[in-house]
Amino acid sequence: MPIDVTALVEQARAGQPLAVARLISLVEEASPHLRSIVTALAPLTGRARVLGLTGPPGVGKSTATSALITALRARGQRIGVLAIDPSSPFSGGALLGDRIRMHDHATDPDVFIRSMATRGQLGGLALATPQAVRVLDAAGYDVILIETVGVGQSEVDIVSLADTTLVLLAPGLGDGIQAAKAGILEIADIFVVNKSDRPGADQTARDLTHMISLGRKEITGPRWRPPVISTIAATHTGIDDLVSAIDTHHAWLTTHAELDARRTHRAAAEIEALALATLRSRLTETNTLPNLAEQVAAGDLDPYTAADHLINP
Amino acid sequence: MPIDVTALVEQARAGQPLAVARLISLVEEASPHLRSIVTALAPLTGRARVLGLTGPPGVGKSTATSALITALRARGQRIGVLAIDPSSPFSGGALLGDRIRMHDHATDPDVFIRSMATRGQLGGLALATPQAVRVLDAAGYDVILIETVGVGQSEVDIVSLADTTLVLLAPGLGDGIQAAKAGILEIADIFVVNKSDRPGADQTARDLTHMISLGRKEITGPRWRPPVISTIAATHTGIDDLVSAIDTHHAWLTTHAELDARRTHRAAAEIEALALATLRSRLTETNTLPNLAEQVAAGDLDPYTAADHLINP
Repeated sequence: MPIDVTALVEQARAGQPLAVARLISLVEEASPHLRSIVTALAPLTGRARVLGLTGPPGVGKSTATSALITALRARGQRIGVLAIDPSSPFSGGALLGDRIRMHDHATDPDVFIRSMATRGQLGGLALATPQAVRVLDAAGYDVILIETVGVGQSEVDIVSLADTTLVLLAPGLGDGIQAAKAGILEIADIFVVNKSDRPGADQTARDLTHMISLGRKEITGPRWRPPVISTIAATHTGIDDLVSAIDTHHAWLTTHAELDARRTHRAAAEIEALALATLRSRLTETNTLPNLAEQVAAGDLDPYTAADHLINP
Repeated sequence: MPIDVTALVEQARAGQPLAVARLISLVEEASPHLRSIVTALAPLTGRARVLGLTGPPGVGKSTATSALITALRARGQRIGVLAIDPSSPFSGGALLGDRIRMHDHATDPDVFIRSMATRGQLGGLALATPQAVRVLDAAGYDVILIETVGVGQSEVDIVSLADTTLVLLAPGLGDGIQAAKAGILEIADIFVVNKSDRPGADQTARDLTHMISLGRKEITGPRWRPPVISTIAATHTGIDDLVSAIDTHHAWLTTHAELDARRTHRAAAEIEALALATLRSRLTETNTLPNLAEQVAAGDLDPYTAADHLINP
């Protein structure tokens, strides 16, 4: 069946969830229609606020996402959620989106939740995620939440493309926080200590605050200082504080011209992913690679010279 | 201090662990010397057998690796281990190699263990891992074992570049095996049910055997049927069976001309990663990307057209 991209984009714009889902599938599959979809979506985008949410397994990301959705819906905002699955044969990540969808927000037409997987393609998520954000943006979702299980650098990179990035932790991670220091300091705009009724929650919050103050010593000039918000997402405790911190950060971004900077950064990542995908498909289009690979495997050619031949046949 | 690549490669070839470590660091950092290193190593390689080992967290990969090393050392083979760390800010993966190194094989000069991380670079592991294998191969290690914590597709891709890939499981994973079906069926040459003294081990082995028989229905022609080996790595139980299965698989690969096919496949992945890295550095060399990104962020240009401009300025 031929695909009418213009009609699909129109239907998505009118808020039809099936059209939104179909468009996301097409960008995820890197469909031959990708180009026309991307071009059709571009002028319709730029309005949505993009939130990133990440954290180690077991801190309650799904519950926090669900609580956030409830709070944002209460003020009338439409929410799109992209749950990034690193597509491991071992993780249960693919079920994340389904798990949320099944529960609190299953019947709400103004909440769209979707799991995304890489299918093993190099740069797959880097390519598909910004386009899926565009689909949701064009479809009029006010807030787009990108959630990852936070297992690999590429997932962290993706979530850090958001306007505001939330890093969730929970008490009792112990060494986890120590190990995580470098990585999370860089990407977190807001820290959330979830399950804060558990023993050690205050200590975790204090450790984070201390860590943030250490990290700031090297910084000159005005910079956002990540707040540490304590929540119990399961009972919606602290979620209003969290929403308020998100709003404060957004206002800060706007005041300091950081919002444009972040969106330019996101656009750069998007352009580069598209360019690399185009170049990659050119590399494998010809029959040059198999021949070169045989010579390299046989030891008759070094791989760098082979790479040169591949680029300039 | 200038780096004398020729001298380093000579020292690595003579079995000096410090030179081996230095070369791996250089390929991992994508040093400006990468090209001369790769070219110098190429003629010295092709002798080592490459094993891949993966599996979900908690199945005993470190213990199994250690037991395998002991068994291979007992027959006089020199072993190089690359422990792939997906470089998550949340995983403790970086400690994997250290954990093994600290224990059983710390004082053995014929065992070299190294953790590798991506440092967030796109295609980082895809680029560095085959080159690190070349370093160890040139340094005369008979067996190179690539171990991953198996959390993401890219790590699975890397481990599947091995001559022989072992997938470790343990009893009690339950749904894990169901979820893992598709992914592990494709890459496993040998299944290992570790911790086989635990309840449910026989059932896990039976489930795997059943799964393998189902997977074979679609296959025509001769094909390797992955054996299911039961082990208790902590007590070295079943490790001789495992080594014997590895040898049988290697013999099968050679008989069926599959060894060359796999090495050609590995070379192709290597060439492609080098070519993409070269193209990527070209893309970001110029000042074109920031300008294009601003236009895309402002909605004045669609990202696909921007990608075209980036490729053909």
